[in-house]
Amino acid sequence: MFFLNLFGCGSVAQVTTTEEKKGQYLSINLGFALGVTFGIFVSRGVSGAHLNPAVSLSLCVLGRHPWMKLPFYIFFQLLGAFLAAATVALQYHDAIRAYGGGQLTVTGPTATAGIFSTYPSDYLSVWGGVVDQVIGTAALLLCVLALGDQRNTSLPDSFQPVLVGAVVLVIGISMGSNSGYALNPARDFGPRLFTYIAGWGDDVFRAGDGWWWVPIVAPCVGALLGTLIYQLMIEVHHPIHQSELPSSCQEATESKTGVELEGVEPGCEKPTKNSNLA
Amino acid sequence: MFFLNLFGCGSVAQVTTTEEKKGQYLSINLGFALGVTFGIFVSRGVSGAHLNPAVSLSLCVLGRHPWMKLPFYIFFQLLGAFLAAATVALQYHDAIRAYGGGQLTVTGPTATAGIFSTYPSDYLSVWGGVVDQVIGTAALLLCVLALGDQRNTSLPDSFQPVLVGAVVLVIGISMGSNSGYALNPARDFGPRLFTYIAGWGDDVFRAGDGWWWVPIVAPCVGALLGTLIYQLMIEVHHPIHQSELPSSCQEATESKTGVELEGVEPGCEKPTKNSNLA
Amino acid sequence: MFFLNLFGCGSVAQVTTTEEKKGQYLSINLGFALGVTFGIFVSRGVSGAHLNPAVSLSLCVLGRHPWMKLPFYIFFQLLGAFLAAATVALQYHDAIRAYGGGQLTVTGPTATAGIFSTYPSDYLSVWGGVVDQVIGTAALLLCVLALGDQRNTSLPDSFQPVLVGAVVLVIGISMGSNSGYALNPARDFGPRLFTYIAGWGDDVFRAGDGWWWVPIVAPCVGALLGTLIYQLMIEVHHPIHQSELPSSCQEATESKTGVELEGVEPGCEKPTKNSNLA
Amino acid sequence: MFFLNLFGCGSVAQVTTTEEKKGQYLSINLGFALGVTFGIFVSRGVSGAHLNPAVSLSLCVLGRHPWMKLPFYIFFQLLGAFLAAATVALQYHDAIRAYGGGQLTVTGPTATAGIFSTYPSDYLSVWGGVVDQVIGTAALLLCVLALGDQRNTSLPDSFQPVLVGAVVLVIGISMGSNSGYALNPARDFGPRLFTYIAGWGDDVFRAGDGWWWVPIVAPCVGALLGTLIYQLMIEVHHPIHQSELPSSCQEATESKTGVELEGVEPGCEKPTKNSNLA
Repeated sequence: MFFLNLFGCGSVAQVTTTEEKKGQYLSINLGFALGVTFGIFVSRGVSGAHLNPAVSLSLCVLGRHPWMKLPFYIFFQLLGAFLAAATVALQYHDAIRAYGGGQLTVTGPTATAGIFSTYPSDYLSVWGGVVDQVIGTAALLLCVLALGDQRNTSLPDSFQPVLVGAVVLVIGISMGSNSGYALNPARDFGPRLFTYIAGWGDDVFRAGDGWWWVPIVAPCVGALLGTLIYQLMIEVHHPIHQSELPSSCQEATESKTGVELEGVEPGCEKPTKNSNLA
Repeated sequence: MFFLNLFGCGSVAQVTTTEEKKGQYLSINLGFALGVTFGIFVSRGVSGAHLNPAVSLSLCVLGRHPWMKLPFYIFFQLLGAFLAAATVALQYHDAIRAYGGGQLTVTGPTATAGIFSTYPSDYLSVWGGVVDQVIGTAALLLCVLALGDQRNTSLPDSFQPVLVGAVVLVIGISMGSNSGYALNPARDFGPRLFTYIAGWGDDVFRAGDGWWWVPIVAPCVGALLGTLIYQLMIEVHHPIHQSELPSSCQEATESKTGVELEGVEPGCEKPTKNSNLA
Repeated sequence: MFFLNLFGCGSVAQVTTTEEKKGQYLSINLGFALGVTFGIFVSRGVSGAHLNPAVSLSLCVLGRHPWMKLPFYIFFQLLGAFLAAATVALQYHDAIRAYGGGQLTVTGPTATAGIFSTYPSDYLSVWGGVVDQVIGTAALLLCVLALGDQRNTSLPDSFQPVLVGAVVLVIGISMGSNSGYALNPARDFGPRLFTYIAGWGDDVFRAGDGWWWVPIVAPCVGALLGTLIYQLMIEVHHPIHQSELPSSCQEATESKTGVELEGVEPGCEKPTKNSNLA
Repeated sequence: MFFLNLFGCGSVAQVTTTEEKKGQYLSINLGFALGVTFGIFVSRGVSGAHLNPAVSLSLCVLGRHPWMKLPFYIFFQLLGAFLAAATVALQYHDAIRAYGGGQLTVTGPTATAGIFSTYPSDYLSVWGGVVDQVIGTAALLLCVLALGDQRNTSLPDSFQPVLVGAVVLVIGISMGSNSGYALNPARDFGPRLFTYIAGWGDDVFRAGDGWWWVPIVAPCVGALLGTLIYQLMIEVHHPIHQSELPSSCQEATESKTGVELEGVEPGCEKPTKNSNLA
């Protein structure tokens, strides 16, 4: 989580404060994509690479993850994003001061709050923003679930972080302009809290007609929608459903990385129809 | 298919409606390339990753795929592209309205039909457009067939979607400016139908001197040409032809991903000359 | 070879004729890089992926490749590059005519000969161009030899084309502006012959103070220099030299891809010191 | 080391002397990233891919590397960077002369010293530069250590150079604008020495309020900080600490590539608690 925002917000800071002289929108897309990749690599040994509260929530709803752990994950996801925002603010302290003429503003020509959290484009209605975030997060979940499903991809474990980063890249390229593709409540709210405290003031909650709640609520809806569509469209094509597996195997499918949701562990092979009835 | 157009057309929408502020032509190339990659990853478990009617047609002509299934595939390829176009239109609803001043136009300075389907450059003759699409699709097929040929590449199954995406990237980089590298009847006609219905009107069929049929017919010709060239140039260098294999192995070569056309399944080794005569 | 120039020159055509609206210098770098990658993938089953006469020459000098085959390879490398240039000219026929106002010129504001072959920057002296090409090709060889050396990389066979493409990408990014990083006599001279015949006239040989011979001679010198440096710098660090191997193993090291120059085949293990003395 | 600076500084030379016509900031990021990748590939067989004195220092402090070898490594790292700078100056001799009007300047509109070494942005205070380099190098170390830790990633050996290059890419994208992300004393000081000798004069030490020492000292501090954080945050989550391993295994963990710092060699499995007490 920390690296997601460190590299992601850092790339926005670089593009913003140099007025696109040292980077463009594509570098921001690459910053968040590689931020996700290395965020997974660094954290998978510790926390199982849970970087996104909306994804964690989906796993709980599906019964793949205990509800008890959810608040714990969300707290650390928020904390990581908050600390990353603080680090970016420290590293770009001089740059932000020079760019904003000493002012920390949320809107206007030298606004710098957009380095940390997302704000909608002028043309975007609140409803349009909700739709944008729901579609984006649903697409994220569909791709990530497909990448983690061993029946689809037989992908080596070590390449998943790279491909999940590529999903984030293409979403940034194709769904980024409306409202900055938060797709993740912690990625957006952690840095927003930081900017609130660090001097940007309560404009961070008022800007964009009170936009702040959209990247919290809509990604959760989108993640659930994406998971549901994936279950309906893809899984029904596989002969045996997850739910028919013995419960010990169910546990096993809660995977280490959080992206291999469907990976069946060795020794937990899918039973044939017969052995299932026996 | 859905993801190909969702990410591909989405990236055009982003570049168009932000007037290249949040993306450039290279991001469109990356959008379609990664759209193909994740389109294959998501659909290979379900439909065998048949994303392109022109490719499906080539497989039927070669006898690698039953003709009976062809209409079925084409229908779902078109449906997927149509639904993806609708999703992009929904997600970019506010942006398209703001950019076009409320007008949905096919030509002119704020035209938005090009987000969904391809239209030729001003200088391009119809014949030039046919040549462009035939060469582009033939190059696509040659590369994809070579990537799928185990005798050439010994490429792990899981990297084929990435490399097929890279083929689409380089074609977009080197053959995109004449007419937008449709290379795929469904990718172009599905969204065109959507724009026809959704308010852009029959200009979508009249623009570019009635351009609409070129990205349907020419890719089919190009795909057949590419397959033919591949058979002639590459395959004759291999000692034993596909046609000498027992028919049970022939079946086996119809591969799961639709891109490993030549992959010989285990247990279906190529016979030596002797065993072949026996 | 065909694909190298098809994608490479195609990307220059796209950037040139759209005046950088649909691509920039980075897309040209990517076009040649991926052109090399897919050129190797497509041809490695047939010709062993010999794409560069300067590299083939180095292999002959080192005794890793029979001199007899060299003219044969060079002829087909030139032919492939010539045909690729013709294909690009066909595909971009309308675009080149529109851009050049019907004129095919080698110099001046709407010159199009640079789509096909390299021409030096205005500031570059002939001697500076020779140095540029020698350094560039030596760097290419050093990296490609290191990638192919099993003792260095243990790289799976199927990823070499991707990494060789990445070498070409980084050379284009860091050594491209002086004279267009030909690095390869066939890549440059085949298309130059085409432009000479197809209407650009003998200016293609006169431009840049008779530049045409530099991208033929200098890459050969550079390739030999790079090979020599690699032998001296890297190989001496390995305990047993290639030359101490029995000659049957020597043969085996002439590898399938032309880039795995040092790959020791199974069954041809390096002898221990003892067995070597025996 | 040589290739790091050859490709890295070469890409800056190309962007600078063409005034961004043949490359932009992103190509510089890619140049250094791929320079690191191929620097590791080329040198790992010889020197174990020690490219960065700050990293070598961290390994010594941790006891994973003998202090005796440190001066030796640092000397060759500096020498490689110096020679690479000389090669870039040779290759871009005509270009630098034409761009600078024959003058070799460190500051001003046609300054060319920035091709070789880093200089801070105008707004940056010395303290801000120290913080920038400490954060950047700490992030580099955290990611590289995580990539090399088999318990986190199970990454094939041959992909580490690619992913380490990707770390350098994302740091360049997100932390490059303040002071040019040296992150490496040799990468910065070797070329600075070259420019001092080759005609840029003692301005290379005076510019930026005597900036030159920051990219030497701060990366060492950052590397140690990053290593410390990695030890605290990640390692404590693993059941058995490195320090509990028998000393023969300790040796084994000094890995071939310098980036697999934690890789446990086969035959040196972590003992269970019991066997450890026995």
